[in-house]
Amino acid sequence: MPGSELGADFWMNEYITPWDIYSHGITDVLAHRKTAFQEMYIIRTGAYGKALVLDGKWQSCTGDEFLYHEPLVHPVMLLCGSPKRVLILGGGEGATAREVLRWKTVEQATMIDIDGEDVEACKKHLSEMHQGCFDDARLEVVIGDALDFLDNTAATWDVIISDLSDPIEEGPSFKLFTKEYFEKTKAALSPKGAFVVQAGPVGPAEMHMHVRLNHTLATVFESVQTYLSYVPTYASPWSFILGADQPIDPRPQPERIDGLLDEKTSGGLRMFDGTTLLGMCQLPAHLRRAIAAETHVYTLSQPPKFFGKGSSGAHPSTA
Amino acid sequence: MPGSELGADFWMNEYITPWDIYSHGITDVLAHRKTAFQEMYIIRTGAYGKALVLDGKWQSCTGDEFLYHEPLVHPVMLLCGSPKRVLILGGGEGATAREVLRWKTVEQATMIDIDGEDVEACKKHLSEMHQGCFDDARLEVVIGDALDFLDNTAATWDVIISDLSDPIEEGPSFKLFTKEYFEKTKAALSPKGAFVVQAGPVGPAEMHMHVRLNHTLATVFESVQTYLSYVPTYASPWSFILGADQPIDPRPQPERIDGLLDEKTSGGLRMFDGTTLLGMCQLPAHLRRAIAAETHVYTLSQPPKFFGKGSSGAHPSTA
Amino acid sequence: MPGSELGADFWMNEYITPWDIYSHGITDVLAHRKTAFQEMYIIRTGAYGKALVLDGKWQSCTGDEFLYHEPLVHPVMLLCGSPKRVLILGGGEGATAREVLRWKTVEQATMIDIDGEDVEACKKHLSEMHQGCFDDARLEVVIGDALDFLDNTAATWDVIISDLSDPIEEGPSFKLFTKEYFEKTKAALSPKGAFVVQAGPVGPAEMHMHVRLNHTLATVFESVQTYLSYVPTYASPWSFILGADQPIDPRPQPERIDGLLDEKTSGGLRMFDGTTLLGMCQLPAHLRRAIAAETHVYTLSQPPKFFGKGSSGAHPSTA
Amino acid sequence: MPGSELGADFWMNEYITPWDIYSHGITDVLAHRKTAFQEMYIIRTGAYGKALVLDGKWQSCTGDEFLYHEPLVHPVMLLCGSPKRVLILGGGEGATAREVLRWKTVEQATMIDIDGEDVEACKKHLSEMHQGCFDDARLEVVIGDALDFLDNTAATWDVIISDLSDPIEEGPSFKLFTKEYFEKTKAALSPKGAFVVQAGPVGPAEMHMHVRLNHTLATVFESVQTYLSYVPTYASPWSFILGADQPIDPRPQPERIDGLLDEKTSGGLRMFDGTTLLGMCQLPAHLRRAIAAETHVYTLSQPPKFFGKGSSGAHPSTA
Repeated sequence: MPGSELGADFWMNEYITPWDIYSHGITDVLAHRKTAFQEMYIIRTGAYGKALVLDGKWQSCTGDEFLYHEPLVHPVMLLCGSPKRVLILGGGEGATAREVLRWKTVEQATMIDIDGEDVEACKKHLSEMHQGCFDDARLEVVIGDALDFLDNTAATWDVIISDLSDPIEEGPSFKLFTKEYFEKTKAALSPKGAFVVQAGPVGPAEMHMHVRLNHTLATVFESVQTYLSYVPTYASPWSFILGADQPIDPRPQPERIDGLLDEKTSGGLRMFDGTTLLGMCQLPAHLRRAIAAETHVYTLSQPPKFFGKGSSGAHPSTA
Repeated sequence: MPGSELGADFWMNEYITPWDIYSHGITDVLAHRKTAFQEMYIIRTGAYGKALVLDGKWQSCTGDEFLYHEPLVHPVMLLCGSPKRVLILGGGEGATAREVLRWKTVEQATMIDIDGEDVEACKKHLSEMHQGCFDDARLEVVIGDALDFLDNTAATWDVIISDLSDPIEEGPSFKLFTKEYFEKTKAALSPKGAFVVQAGPVGPAEMHMHVRLNHTLATVFESVQTYLSYVPTYASPWSFILGADQPIDPRPQPERIDGLLDEKTSGGLRMFDGTTLLGMCQLPAHLRRAIAAETHVYTLSQPPKFFGKGSSGAHPSTA
Repeated sequence: MPGSELGADFWMNEYITPWDIYSHGITDVLAHRKTAFQEMYIIRTGAYGKALVLDGKWQSCTGDEFLYHEPLVHPVMLLCGSPKRVLILGGGEGATAREVLRWKTVEQATMIDIDGEDVEACKKHLSEMHQGCFDDARLEVVIGDALDFLDNTAATWDVIISDLSDPIEEGPSFKLFTKEYFEKTKAALSPKGAFVVQAGPVGPAEMHMHVRLNHTLATVFESVQTYLSYVPTYASPWSFILGADQPIDPRPQPERIDGLLDEKTSGGLRMFDGTTLLGMCQLPAHLRRAIAAETHVYTLSQPPKFFGKGSSGAHPSTA
Repeated sequence: MPGSELGADFWMNEYITPWDIYSHGITDVLAHRKTAFQEMYIIRTGAYGKALVLDGKWQSCTGDEFLYHEPLVHPVMLLCGSPKRVLILGGGEGATAREVLRWKTVEQATMIDIDGEDVEACKKHLSEMHQGCFDDARLEVVIGDALDFLDNTAATWDVIISDLSDPIEEGPSFKLFTKEYFEKTKAALSPKGAFVVQAGPVGPAEMHMHVRLNHTLATVFESVQTYLSYVPTYASPWSFILGADQPIDPRPQPERIDGLLDEKTSGGLRMFDGTTLLGMCQLPAHLRRAIAAETHVYTLSQPPKFFGKGSSGAHPSTA
């Protein structure tokens, strides 16, 4: 682009739909590896800080990741109450672990990520994200496959957090978004345990996968609750789903939440508190209606096929 | 792009920041005019239906405009209670008027838009947006300048809705985002009247303008309330600000709101209801803190300078 | 792009290879139709004037079309000597006919184009290209299929010019780039007649198709001669191939050529003369070597598959 | 782009004009440095091999650089006849030196490039370009400023080759495209010496700078000769200008040239030979007319202002 003050020569393009590209100007490439599992870039962008990109899908960036990681972690921790043992599926950047370790109640956090090279690169280049949490003695990092781990673990956890990349057809994670997997997850929870899964975009053209995931979880857990956050670089409102066998209050009282956070965490939250939580749980009407009307369940034989690099992409988003 | 099933040859690029482009594949150009005021395109996109683009800025599209127009209109109508006379500043697509006219209490709605050619093109090509509301006898369309109108009107209104394009430096609307203008607006309100303004993006890199607008309105009205919606094609959470001299409840009771909507409107809402309103008013903590800390006021001598086509663009967004 | 003096909001993207896009800023869309045969755009660009785009492939533009149409026409006319009857296959813009009709010797020119809507739109919007030649009484325009025409014509022609779009796999023209077609073309030539075909790009990554076309023609005509021109918006050196049963001088004497042009044409040429012709016939060594080594022939059962919109696109260009 | 077989997530955009972007899909970033002089990338592209990019301008790539470097070097060497001492201004990739050292007559080649970090990165990552020539004992590499070198050298050279980046307004090289500089260059030539300069694009929209450079050289040397090559990734026909005080034959006899190359070089040429040279010297008529009509001279007080990153860019190309 003419005008050095204005722009970029190098761009990272992410297809949000097959017809819509969000394109980010790059000022530096900090790391690039073809690992055993995926192609990884850590880039510096002009407006949103450093970003992790896996197989062409933007994962998170330092400029707005707090709008994803704080909502991912704290509602499920609050639902559990006093989580001691926390399992993180995925979460290579270390930002999910960072939020988990804010909880003074946590004694053991285990993060299982399939890609050790990716984790090492994030450790080296994304200190804004992990903020040193890999040095916390309470955190154990396991490099391995989450499905294998769930198949073979005898341990139980108070909280399990699914921070996996979107379930694109060719990707490594789509099995982990099915009823069978959610049942294995539930089996690994302690009796009062709680589960949360990042559950994709819910713009009107692409909320289908979320709605089916919600219904799938509702066949596994007695209570489920969708809530939303707005992460600008995702170019869509983003969803999470809580699952537990205890009731989930859809209108939490903000002052009570603030008191719990004060008591049980070491603080430092940027976007999350009781008022934020109350807002995140109030879904717009069209999304509530779609959730209420859904009847399909994702299974290993009929898994989600999220739009992504390598997918056939004939229609905007999901199956 | 190779692969006709995948994509587009023609693209509309919108700079969200000077470093980030949201690019939409175009399947048809329905109208293109250089009017006396701006360059207007009405395009058909691959994933989001038809869109209106003015001077390179995406205004709204049929695929997600309900996530903008319903939140713009109904909170201020509810705040007023039983609005009879409503003034719309801007709103060329007719979608704001459409929402206003859902209110059975409304006897007179006046929409003032600077660009008659634009309004005519929207009438012709965007029936999904106006849905015939231009034929409603309660609606009067005035082609003219909103500032002139406010300078010279002796009438008063129960509700005034500012649906103007963003206050970019060279654009026609930036004066209408200043203290002086907000005072004129207030002077045109009836005693129990209420005002709302679309108030720009509030992603972490670009919430500055919104925060100052909130503070500016707070110097004019006794009560102000920011609330948010998420419009995917805007690639940012979007803000609105209510202003009135009566108290505004930041935690409205959803069932009460639903009852009022049932009573006073003819129905047909897609995303808005009491639960949605409760959620929209709960701002994330970082935004609340920024609003609380703001001390500057936009005036005619120090107006907002929103990032946009033609702006210097040296930094991501606002002054 | 920010900065109205700098750039565009609307872009036309042409994939030159599956990995390389030439993107042109659009200032206006003059016509857009989905005809019975193809999707047609006539656009105005920022730097290269008006352009015709068919099925996502840039055909020609007013800013540099003379670098394509003059070389397409005049060498074959010179080779024939005193052409009276000229057949143009394709050529919807009218620019090929314009160049043919500069020859005072021409008594009858017939242009056969498959797409009448396309021809009409070019007549209306691209007067810079046709320059009124559709009004020349010597020109007959036939709307129809070139293959059918060649199958059924009993007429003969002194010169036949193949000005067809590239032979992409799904396109209408690939059969017309085969040995069988070239034989039909030859059969429609008068005894001293000559043929020319636009024969695609010859950049080092994409010269394969040209080289095979040259060899295919060499199995049909006693003499063939490749020559090149540089059309900037094609982003590749562009090739043409002459075919005739008389000898073709690969080093024409410029002053003799200039004399013939003076005598037989009405003038007005911009880029073509004797010196230009001498230069165009001197191919770079790597292309001459590739032509000499080629052994394959394109036939109806093994036609060219040029890279283009809709092609599988797994490799840069040709088969 | 969705479809891993089709395309890229990362793109390098080069503005060919302010309205036209040539965008190359990147598969790897091999090196990226902000040196003392410029921002350097060495990237791997999908279709054209490895490329060197300086300050957003594509310099050369392994896929088509032979179409630039062979024409740059061999005509001036032939003009000189038996060059022993050769000076290269710029040429960081080492490919110009590679071609110079093919000449068995060369005893001493000196390459002066301003950016040692750039040269080191090219040595490391672009062996396809330099092909080991940095190890040739006849080659001396000087890291320094070409202007300083010419100001202070007492040596003379049989051939001087100006392989500098385009003279953009803010760039380091624009002074080296002025009459004053060309006079210093001439003063450093031996009595029968010859000079060549890469002289920019000559598409119809951007040939202005070339034409003035030609005229500027003609005020310094008794003979000048423009010739052209076509490098696909430059998206324009590219020009070079020879300058000498001896006559330059504009229609060299191919067989004689081939004999000289056989005798004096070690072979290995891909695109250059006598026929190629004959073709390159035959300019199209519109360019010859523009050269003949030009009257302006580039001087230090009125230097060229080539379009490039950082230039004002209000018009397509040149001043």
